[in-house]
Amino acid sequence: MKHTVPTLALAATIIALALAGASRVARAQEPPAWLAAYQEPAARLVGEALSSHFAWERLAELGDTYGPRLSGSTNLDAAIRWAVAEMKRDGLENVRTEPVMVPVWIRGNESVAITAPSEQPLVMLGLGMSVGTPPEGLEAEAWVVGSFEELDATPERAKGKIVVYNVPFVNYGQTVQYRGSGASRAARHGALAVLVRSVGPPGLRTPHTGALRYDDGVPRIPAAAITVEDAERLQRMQDRGTRVVVRLKMEAHVLPDVQSANVIGEIRGGERPDEVVVLGGHFDSWDVGTGSTDDGGGCVVTWEALRLMKKLGLKPRRTVRVVLFTNEENGLRGGQAYLDAYRNQLANHVMMLESDGGVFRPTGFGFTGSDAARATIEQIGTLLAGIDAHRIGPGGGGADIGPSVREGQIPAMSPMVEGDYFLIHHTPADTVDKIDPMDMARNAAAIAVMAYVVADMPERLAR
Amino acid sequence: MKHTVPTLALAATIIALALAGASRVARAQEPPAWLAAYQEPAARLVGEALSSHFAWERLAELGDTYGPRLSGSTNLDAAIRWAVAEMKRDGLENVRTEPVMVPVWIRGNESVAITAPSEQPLVMLGLGMSVGTPPEGLEAEAWVVGSFEELDATPERAKGKIVVYNVPFVNYGQTVQYRGSGASRAARHGALAVLVRSVGPPGLRTPHTGALRYDDGVPRIPAAAITVEDAERLQRMQDRGTRVVVRLKMEAHVLPDVQSANVIGEIRGGERPDEVVVLGGHFDSWDVGTGSTDDGGGCVVTWEALRLMKKLGLKPRRTVRVVLFTNEENGLRGGQAYLDAYRNQLANHVMMLESDGGVFRPTGFGFTGSDAARATIEQIGTLLAGIDAHRIGPGGGGADIGPSVREGQIPAMSPMVEGDYFLIHHTPADTVDKIDPMDMARNAAAIAVMAYVVADMPERLAR
Repeated sequence: MKHTVPTLALAATIIALALAGASRVARAQEPPAWLAAYQEPAARLVGEALSSHFAWERLAELGDTYGPRLSGSTNLDAAIRWAVAEMKRDGLENVRTEPVMVPVWIRGNESVAITAPSEQPLVMLGLGMSVGTPPEGLEAEAWVVGSFEELDATPERAKGKIVVYNVPFVNYGQTVQYRGSGASRAARHGALAVLVRSVGPPGLRTPHTGALRYDDGVPRIPAAAITVEDAERLQRMQDRGTRVVVRLKMEAHVLPDVQSANVIGEIRGGERPDEVVVLGGHFDSWDVGTGSTDDGGGCVVTWEALRLMKKLGLKPRRTVRVVLFTNEENGLRGGQAYLDAYRNQLANHVMMLESDGGVFRPTGFGFTGSDAARATIEQIGTLLAGIDAHRIGPGGGGADIGPSVREGQIPAMSPMVEGDYFLIHHTPADTVDKIDPMDMARNAAAIAVMAYVVADMPERLAR
Repeated sequence: MKHTVPTLALAATIIALALAGASRVARAQEPPAWLAAYQEPAARLVGEALSSHFAWERLAELGDTYGPRLSGSTNLDAAIRWAVAEMKRDGLENVRTEPVMVPVWIRGNESVAITAPSEQPLVMLGLGMSVGTPPEGLEAEAWVVGSFEELDATPERAKGKIVVYNVPFVNYGQTVQYRGSGASRAARHGALAVLVRSVGPPGLRTPHTGALRYDDGVPRIPAAAITVEDAERLQRMQDRGTRVVVRLKMEAHVLPDVQSANVIGEIRGGERPDEVVVLGGHFDSWDVGTGSTDDGGGCVVTWEALRLMKKLGLKPRRTVRVVLFTNEENGLRGGQAYLDAYRNQLANHVMMLESDGGVFRPTGFGFTGSDAARATIEQIGTLLAGIDAHRIGPGGGGADIGPSVREGQIPAMSPMVEGDYFLIHHTPADTVDKIDPMDMARNAAAIAVMAYVVADMPERLAR
């Protein structure tokens, strides 16, 4: 009968919501005694975060000054040096870089055009890690398909063609497979290149880049994203019976790996410094936009949690560590390097939190861990009801913390937010103006409170 | 006391609206006897327009097949041939082209980048009719100004700089002056080039092109549109005290004029064929997007009015003529050529209507003419209450019909619509998917009813 209690509480909550017409949720239970001590520091962290637009201004300075930060670029190197200097200025401890070898993919010039029935340029972005075309380009008839099933049903039609995947965006996990493996799937049937409808909702002729993976033993063919508008246009032309010829030119190529780095800063724990709460995001971005939502914002708000603690003189029992991971977008080498460096210390990793879903309006956190740990996290969450960021849902985690979380069976969290993430994801429109300064401050506040309490509470978070 | 009557009627209308919660407006007066005869043909025109997505499909075929249609381009030439053939297939009469010499502006390759404090590309579109840069580009410090007043207050700061106009979009008429005359205003003070914040609301890193005009006696300097995001970014960098260097490369240049054409089709009047109601839009577009909203849609819906009449066997007393004007965007030569060709027949031009504000949800018509003519137009408008397109407001007209309307003092109309015109205006995102097929059908229906009644009613529309 245990589950009856929360069910009844939920029903009561729904009634209360319906009556109040507000989004506040009544607390399901009285907070435990140990949590009472955290109401005051939580209020101070929230108040400090919301007293200025510091986080947004820092993110704006990052994006404005260094722009996009693709792995291996001089911009990323310069931004890493800036982050180290800024963390030191914030008074963080043990500020350091940890070297990571990363792939170097160069986009070069690129274009795609319809050449028959009439010449007209389309809007495109080559997919990350794609090979290029011959210098004169590839020109071939287009064949538009709506799914892998349609491709595989008449594979002979792909031979010598440029295959166009016109697959509407359902959700990222479901649709991104066409970007990730569409090139090799078509290459198996003799296609010369692929164009992939951008993985995102309709924008303003907005192309979305992102990484692909080539299968072994299959020719590596060039692949580019086109816009929703142009995918639909090619579909209409094919449906009318028009023979459409497309010319794709891409200078894309891969250079030898170079050294990049994860950036790390800490607030050392006052009593149990070897026990660590890790926060972070990834500092690299695609080479378009300024990587503000993906994922400069996640870096700045997790870093901000430490800055706020430092500024307020809040020194938790355990260590809080921020990691700005490198090379999430096209290699995940930063997350792997962290695991390699800290494999022997994972048992002392109390919790890992990654923000990589945009610093839009926060509603709470996703959490993955034991029921006992979840109960504690839900209790801490009640401290965030005032900024409406108190909900604890499933599915905490992140690409960069993933390798360590899996290896160490570490409780994992990530902010839940409401925003147009996939409208701007991997596009030139990923710029700081899409982010509300107060939303960003609330993200920082929520992460700071959660991290501080987990790092300071008397009993370690359960595994 | 005369104005008391409409005031009371208006009050009654407001009360009726408030009670009904609907957008229908009660008729202010009973329709006159002569109008009763038009209820049946009006219903047939509306029904035929709304029985299919013919207009949208035609516009999609135009944009998909011929793409952008800049004056002097082979795409515009091919689209003109297509329109002539299609008009003949519709059964229109006197289908013909009338030659117009048009300017030829070539965009060529172009780019703009911040080069200091770090190298990063910006998104841009050169302004139409701009000169290019030297092949190696122009590189200079940026100076961001918020108005002409700010520029003129310290003119010496412009010398040797690339002046950036960061002027927020208020409305088109007010803001477009920075695009139109910003280059020459800055060149007077020795600026090397100008970057103009796109004339439109914030988009998704969406640049808006459009024509500029060079003043005589001032050096012609290159000019390009940048996005709202990048204008704000350059502003923030300047406000932080960062010295920003920008490099602009443009191959833009003008070639000698070539021959283009206005496309004309008619339904000849059964009784007074020399009296003409002219409908139209402009068939040229900028060289980005597919010119679907600006102004393929206006061409198709006005053309559609004639197709609907023809299909229903409705032959009005007077002639209805559709004109697809050429070269509105960068010369207005088509509108001028029409005036030159028909100057002696303007007295017989009963009314001219242009659709160039987008074929979004129609709400009625703007009208410019005498009070007597307005009263008649308002009566005809009542036939369109069923599709909520019956309102008659001020300000009818259009760029292409403007020269003839002014010269001949001809009553002028244009559809009033509700839509995101300036979000996609002169951008790559001006594509057919932004237009709702039923909105387009309703535009065609409203224009067809208005044009048919004006062309057929016993008494000629008053001057």
